[in-house]
Amino acid sequence: MAALSTNPKAEMVERFLNCVAQGDVAQVTYLISSSSFLINKRGENGWTALMLAARNGHFEVAKALIAKGCDLSPVNKSGQTAYDIASFWGHKHIATLLIGGGQDGYPQSTFPDVVYGPGENIYFNHEFLDRSSNKRTDSKWLAAKQTSPHTVYLLFHNLNPLVTPESLDQDSTGGASSNQLSRLRPTSVKPFLRQPGITVVFLGVEKRKRDLNTTAILAGEEEDDGLTAWFALNTEQDPTELLKLVDSKSFFLQPPMPSLLMFSDNDAGIIAHARAVLAWHSRYSFCPTCGSETRVDEGGHKRTCLREGCLSLRGIHNTCYPRVDPVAIMLVIHPDGNQCLLGRKKVFPPGMFSCLAGFIEPGETVEEGVRREVWEESGVRIGPVRYITSQPWPMPSSLMIGCHAVALTIAINVDENEIEEARWFTRQQVIDATLKSKNAVFSLPPRQAIAHYLIKHWIGMNANL
Amino acid sequence: MAALSTNPKAEMVERFLNCVAQGDVAQVTYLISSSSFLINKRGENGWTALMLAARNGHFEVAKALIAKGCDLSPVNKSGQTAYDIASFWGHKHIATLLIGGGQDGYPQSTFPDVVYGPGENIYFNHEFLDRSSNKRTDSKWLAAKQTSPHTVYLLFHNLNPLVTPESLDQDSTGGASSNQLSRLRPTSVKPFLRQPGITVVFLGVEKRKRDLNTTAILAGEEEDDGLTAWFALNTEQDPTELLKLVDSKSFFLQPPMPSLLMFSDNDAGIIAHARAVLAWHSRYSFCPTCGSETRVDEGGHKRTCLREGCLSLRGIHNTCYPRVDPVAIMLVIHPDGNQCLLGRKKVFPPGMFSCLAGFIEPGETVEEGVRREVWEESGVRIGPVRYITSQPWPMPSSLMIGCHAVALTIAINVDENEIEEARWFTRQQVIDATLKSKNAVFSLPPRQAIAHYLIKHWIGMNANL
Ligand SMILES: [Zn+2]
Ligand SMILES: [Zn+2]
Repeated sequence: MAALSTNPKAEMVERFLNCVAQGDVAQVTYLISSSSFLINKRGENGWTALMLAARNGHFEVAKALIAKGCDLSPVNKSGQTAYDIASFWGHKHIATLLIGGGQDGYPQSTFPDVVYGPGENIYFNHEFLDRSSNKRTDSKWLAAKQTSPHTVYLLFHNLNPLVTPESLDQDSTGGASSNQLSRLRPTSVKPFLRQPGITVVFLGVEKRKRDLNTTAILAGEEEDDGLTAWFALNTEQDPTELLKLVDSKSFFLQPPMPSLLMFSDNDAGIIAHARAVLAWHSRYSFCPTCGSETRVDEGGHKRTCLREGCLSLRGIHNTCYPRVDPVAIMLVIHPDGNQCLLGRKKVFPPGMFSCLAGFIEPGETVEEGVRREVWEESGVRIGPVRYITSQPWPMPSSLMIGCHAVALTIAINVDENEIEEARWFTRQQVIDATLKSKNAVFSLPPRQAIAHYLIKHWIGMNANL
Repeated sequence: MAALSTNPKAEMVERFLNCVAQGDVAQVTYLISSSSFLINKRGENGWTALMLAARNGHFEVAKALIAKGCDLSPVNKSGQTAYDIASFWGHKHIATLLIGGGQDGYPQSTFPDVVYGPGENIYFNHEFLDRSSNKRTDSKWLAAKQTSPHTVYLLFHNLNPLVTPESLDQDSTGGASSNQLSRLRPTSVKPFLRQPGITVVFLGVEKRKRDLNTTAILAGEEEDDGLTAWFALNTEQDPTELLKLVDSKSFFLQPPMPSLLMFSDNDAGIIAHARAVLAWHSRYSFCPTCGSETRVDEGGHKRTCLREGCLSLRGIHNTCYPRVDPVAIMLVIHPDGNQCLLGRKKVFPPGMFSCLAGFIEPGETVEEGVRREVWEESGVRIGPVRYITSQPWPMPSSLMIGCHAVALTIAINVDENEIEEARWFTRQQVIDATLKSKNAVFSLPPRQAIAHYLIKHWIGMNANL
C-alpha cells in the first residue's frame, strides 16, 4: 500500500477522504465538483467518503455527497453500510438522511436509541395503502367503489397472485425477480364477482387522492371522493376462463416461495395484507363455534355465522375476525458476545443456517416465548431478551417478532423434530456469510427475511468500526 | 425544614444519608447496626437511603441496606422506587439486585439498555410451570400423569376458575384479593373426566422435581419421574354436583374482571395459560375449514378434524392450534416530550384514562399497527415507535405488545365508536395520578395492566431525579 503514495490519483483520494473525515464541507464540495471520480472511492481501510462522514457525524458533508449522487450501498470490511455506521455511532440525523426517512416528514427520534431504520423497511413491511377500516362497514361506499372505473383489483388463484412480467426481456432481468402484481379494472373482473367460491377483500385506498374528475360527475356517475380503492379477489375454481379475459402475459405465480419475496416494496406490502386475509377466508369459511356456514362482512374483514342463536353472534368474538399468529424469532448471542447460534431445518437449501423461531403460545410473553423456543429447539438457556423489529409474514398469516437473546449456557442439544442442526458461529464467520465471501462456511437466509436483518443488526452492534 | 437541624435525630438521619450518598459502606453499616431506626428514613427531599444508593451506583451500600431488611417499595416525589432510579441511571447491577433477578442465576445484561425489570414481572407474565410441550404427544405419559396422586387439577366452569379463599378472615383481608386457585387431586376430579363437554388441558410440570418416592415404586405404581403435572379442566355443565365433591369453601370466581387480577403471581401466570387455551376449546370445537366436529389431541393443545379428507388434515394449519391475538397498546408521547395521550372508553370506571390499544391486523408490523390504531382512535399521527414490554391477557387470548409512540401532531379527533374521550395529560398530572394524590385529575388503570406499566415507565424516563 505504501506504493500508493507515489500515485497522484491515489494521493488525491487520500486527501479527499481526509477532508471528509475532518468535515471540511467547502473543500469536499470543491473536490467532488472538479474531480467527480472521487465520490465513491475507498481509502486504504476500505471506507468510502460517505462512511467517514457517517462515522464522524458530519451531516453537511454527507448531504453534499448524497446530492452529488454517491452510492449509498457499499459496505466496509465488517459488512456495514454508511447507514449501519451512522446508527452505531448514534448520529441519528445522518442515519435518517441515509434511509430517506426525512422525506415523509418524520422528525428526529426523541428516544435515545430509536432511529427509523431498515428494521421498519424490511420486506412485507411497507404500507402502500391506507386501510381505511372505517369504510369497511360503509356498504354503500364499498358497493360504489367496487364498480368505480378508478378501482384496482388484484386477482389470486388458490392464494397465488396474478402477476405481469415487468420487462419482456426475461433474459436480462432474470425473469422471476421482475414480476409485478397485475392491476385489473372492475370491467375485467366483473364476470367473476358473482361466482361461487369467490372472496373479495377491501384492502384500502391509495394514500394520495386523485385530482377530482369533474367530467365524471358531469357524466352522471357517483360523486367522486378522489379515493382510489383496492380490492383483492381469490378464487379456488379453475382459472382457465379467467385468464382468457386478462392480459395474455399474466400468470398465477407459483409456487409461492421464494417467488413471493421478489416484488417491489409496495407490492410486497399489499401481498402481506391481501394474502393473509384471503388465506383466512379459505380456511375459516365455517363457524368454529357451531360448525355452520358463514357470510362475509365488513369488506372481507369479518365472517358472521348464519345460524341464528349461535354464541358467536353475542358479543365480540375472535372467531369472526382474521387470525394473526405471533411468532418469536430470535438471534441467540453467546455469553461471550462474539458468537451467535443459528440452526438449520431439513427443508432449508444446503448450507443455509438461520435464526431459531416458533409460535408464541397462549399465556406467554414475547420474552418467555423466546426462552421456551430456544430451550426446546437447542437446549440453550436464555437470559435477557431484547426486541429488535417485527415483520408480517403472509404464509399464511404470521407476525414475526424479532429479538436478540443472550444465552446463559452454551451446550447444544438439538430437538431433531424441529431442526437438523444448531451451531455457534463466530462474528467473522457471520460477516463472511453476509458478504458471501469465498471463506463463508454457511449461507444466510435472503435479505427479505427478518432473520437476515436480525443477524446483520447484530454485526452492526460491533464497536469495531 | 430548617428547624430540623436542631433536632438531634433529624441531624443523625441527614448524616446517615450523606454517608450513603458518598458510598461509605463501613460508616453506613455501623450506623444501621447501632441505630436501626435510620434504615427507612427519608431526607428532606423525600429520598430514602436505598434511593440514594441506587442513584449514585453504590452497590455495596445497597446490598448492606437490603441485608438489614430495608423497605424496597417507597417512592420519591416523582413516584419512583429505588429500582426505577437505578434503572434510569443505568446502574444495572443495582437494579438487578433490587428485583432479586440475581437469585435465579441470570447474569448482568450484556445489552446496554436491557435490565430484568418489572416489565417482565407484571401480572399474567409469570411462568410457574415448565410447559414441557414435548410431553403433549406422549399419550402414555399423559395418561399416567392424569391419575398420578401427585398431579394437580384446576377446575373451571364456563372459564371461571374454582378458587379457595386464602384466609377465613374475610374482613381483615378484603375478601376478593385473597383467593387462590383450588388445587384438586385426581381422585376429586375423576367423576368428571369422562363427562360430555369436559375439556382437559395439560399445562406443564412444576419446575422443581419432587424427591423420588421409592415407596410408590414398591407399591407397584408406574415408575415416578418426579415431575408434578398440572392439568386444567373446563366444564359448561351445571356445576352443582361438581361443587359437592370439593372443599365447601371453594367457589367459581365471577365475574372474571376485576377478580382475575387479584391472584398471586404464580396463580396469575397459570390462569393466563389455562384460561386462554380453555377459551379456545370453548369457541373452536368445530373445524373452521369444513364445519365438522373435532377431537382434542396433544394434551389439549390441538384439535383435529374428524372428517376424512378435510384440507386441515394435510400439512400443518393454524386451524388446529390455539389462537393468540396480538394487540398493540401504546402510550403516545407529545412531541414536547412532557405530555402523554390517554383515552377513556365508556366501560371504564369514572375518571379512569388509559393507553390506546387495538388488534394488530394481518399484514401489519407492530409499529404500523400502533400508528394505525392511534390515527383511527384519536386522529394523532405517530412517528417513532419503541417496544417496551409484553403481557398475555387471557380475555380470551390476547398478547399485549406494549410500546411508547411519539406523536407528530397534537390535534385530537376522537372516533366515538372506539373511545369516549382522549386528552393530553402533563407529566405532573400523570405523577399525581400514579401517587393517587388529592390533586389527581384522573385515575390510572390498575397496576396489573400493562397500560399502568407503560405509563409508569414513561415517568421513569424523566431525567428530573
Ligand atoms: Zn356459529
Ligand atoms: Zn375439517
